[in-house]
Amino acid sequence: MPTTQTHPSPVTWQTIVEAHERIRERIHRTPVLTSRSLNALSGAQLFFKCENLQKTGSFKIRGASNAILSLSDSEASRGIVTLSSGNHGAAVACVASWRGVPAWIVMPKDTPAVKCRAVESYGGKIIYSEPTITSRKETAARVQAETGAVLIHPYDDDRILAGQATAAKELLEEVPDLDFVIAPVSGGGLLSGTSLSAKHMRPQIKVYGGEPERADDAYRSMETGTLQAQDASDTIADGLRACLSPRTFAILQKHLDGVLLVSEKEILAAMHLIWQRMKIVIEPSSAVALAPVLRNDGPAWKGKIGIILSGGNVELA
Amino acid sequence: MPTTQTHPSPVTWQTIVEAHERIRERIHRTPVLTSRSLNALSGAQLFFKCENLQKTGSFKIRGASNAILSLSDSEASRGIVTLSSGNHGAAVACVASWRGVPAWIVMPKDTPAVKCRAVESYGGKIIYSEPTITSRKETAARVQAETGAVLIHPYDDDRILAGQATAAKELLEEVPDLDFVIAPVSGGGLLSGTSLSAKHMRPQIKVYGGEPERADDAYRSMETGTLQAQDASDTIADGLRACLSPRTFAILQKHLDGVLLVSEKEILAAMHLIWQRMKIVIEPSSAVALAPVLRNDGPAWKGKIGIILSGGNVELA
Repeated sequence: MPTTQTHPSPVTWQTIVEAHERIRERIHRTPVLTSRSLNALSGAQLFFKCENLQKTGSFKIRGASNAILSLSDSEASRGIVTLSSGNHGAAVACVASWRGVPAWIVMPKDTPAVKCRAVESYGGKIIYSEPTITSRKETAARVQAETGAVLIHPYDDDRILAGQATAAKELLEEVPDLDFVIAPVSGGGLLSGTSLSAKHMRPQIKVYGGEPERADDAYRSMETGTLQAQDASDTIADGLRACLSPRTFAILQKHLDGVLLVSEKEILAAMHLIWQRMKIVIEPSSAVALAPVLRNDGPAWKGKIGIILSGGNVELA
Repeated sequence: MPTTQTHPSPVTWQTIVEAHERIRERIHRTPVLTSRSLNALSGAQLFFKCENLQKTGSFKIRGASNAILSLSDSEASRGIVTLSSGNHGAAVACVASWRGVPAWIVMPKDTPAVKCRAVESYGGKIIYSEPTITSRKETAARVQAETGAVLIHPYDDDRILAGQATAAKELLEEVPDLDFVIAPVSGGGLLSGTSLSAKHMRPQIKVYGGEPERADDAYRSMETGTLQAQDASDTIADGLRACLSPRTFAILQKHLDGVLLVSEKEILAAMHLIWQRMKIVIEPSSAVALAPVLRNDGPAWKGKIGIILSGGNVELA
């Protein structure tokens, strides 16, 4: 897929600060919640950055608004195309509607209905693809060729990374003395942005990614030092089926302390705990960031741990 | 059942302020959340006071902490007994544990398991009764006679009412120009406290109760001007099966603008909307306060409406 990257400069603290200024008035500064019972269960102090309470129900509005609000009027007027398993698509559709331009969203046909309805509710036009990464890329390229729209990739774009980095920036502004921060990893947009902000603001912090065993390309990439592929995955964490790009992999190799794999059962248990104890709705992808803290075979969890709850768009059956 | 009321003075603004001072450091000042999509659906501006995010998962900790922290050491040392379909029981067990004294909680045997586990997690001792109000009262009286414990009634107690009134006090402090406030009604502790605070702080405000059609004693009492009974009810809003007491009825007759009945279907639809759009977990009893706003046959809803979401303790099946 051709890249749309028009600013090849690496993401710096300055571009993250500028992104935050650009999007601050458009998005929610989401709350950081705590839970005594989850602290007791984990033996640590947990600080949950609640991007499930963000506009459009996930952190994706941060990157999408930074990227789309950066476009010139003539660029934006051609419309936006993207490929997304859901949350990025909803975010792009929402920001495109703010700018009054069309948005075409390529989504795998097994996307949960709730995420499709969200895209449509913001006026986005859904183009269905097969659920493989190959099919999704090909479909997006075809739509782009047919419409002339600007492609905003969900994570292989420095403007997206700078936007996603603002979630951890807000978290560290509120809790400056975190010992750890954990975010889910899929394409690596959120996690690489998180690592850039966190290591800049607190160099001694440890940054981990949580990843489903059933979509473990980031783990394998970090272990082997070579970017690994991931095609179709059936993990319940439907937002985490993408794989790293060279851009996000390079940042993670530099800044990440490790990727922690979790089973489907652990994802469901962590999701259930958060619903039950914190009374907030999160999607399975969010639970992937808490699950590693609830067991004893990873890092020695103690002190203050920031957990980025990435979204809350889940089918309520 | 003998009353435990030792301070027969009516609840005044001064007692509400004192209650707030007494409990403020022990409880959460819960957030007031808004939702653009629910505003659009209702045609009004909605302000949700999120007592589902309160300690123990409901507003009940407000009254329980005011009542139990008011006891002398010698009174408290005898232990506490109460009767509760769940949330008041958990709150009493929690506050009793703060004071290091035992708590016996009489619960109907059809109480959702999640509410029983909550009572036990705070160290409360559950005594099961039949699900009728008669059986619950008799069982509580028996336990009180056997143990010598102090009875803290869930709502027929001015200290409880003053505590529950602090939720609306916080809501009006944050959104002073509300046109309406709606709270669910069961025994009337929350609703009478809400009406006392709201009418004191903003005399022109309209205060309504939301009540399930299947447990409509407050509606019938207000319509007839005579306290009506309610025995067993099977409404899904399991927290709303109690009936008014003379104490709460008298306050509601003076201050309430009306009771709005909602069907089981409307309760479920409102609950689903809040989970889906606001990404917070509420129990069915909470949804009863939103449901009337989503239809067109009640008051002409416009302007700013405060909605008290009473709790979030629901079985996640």
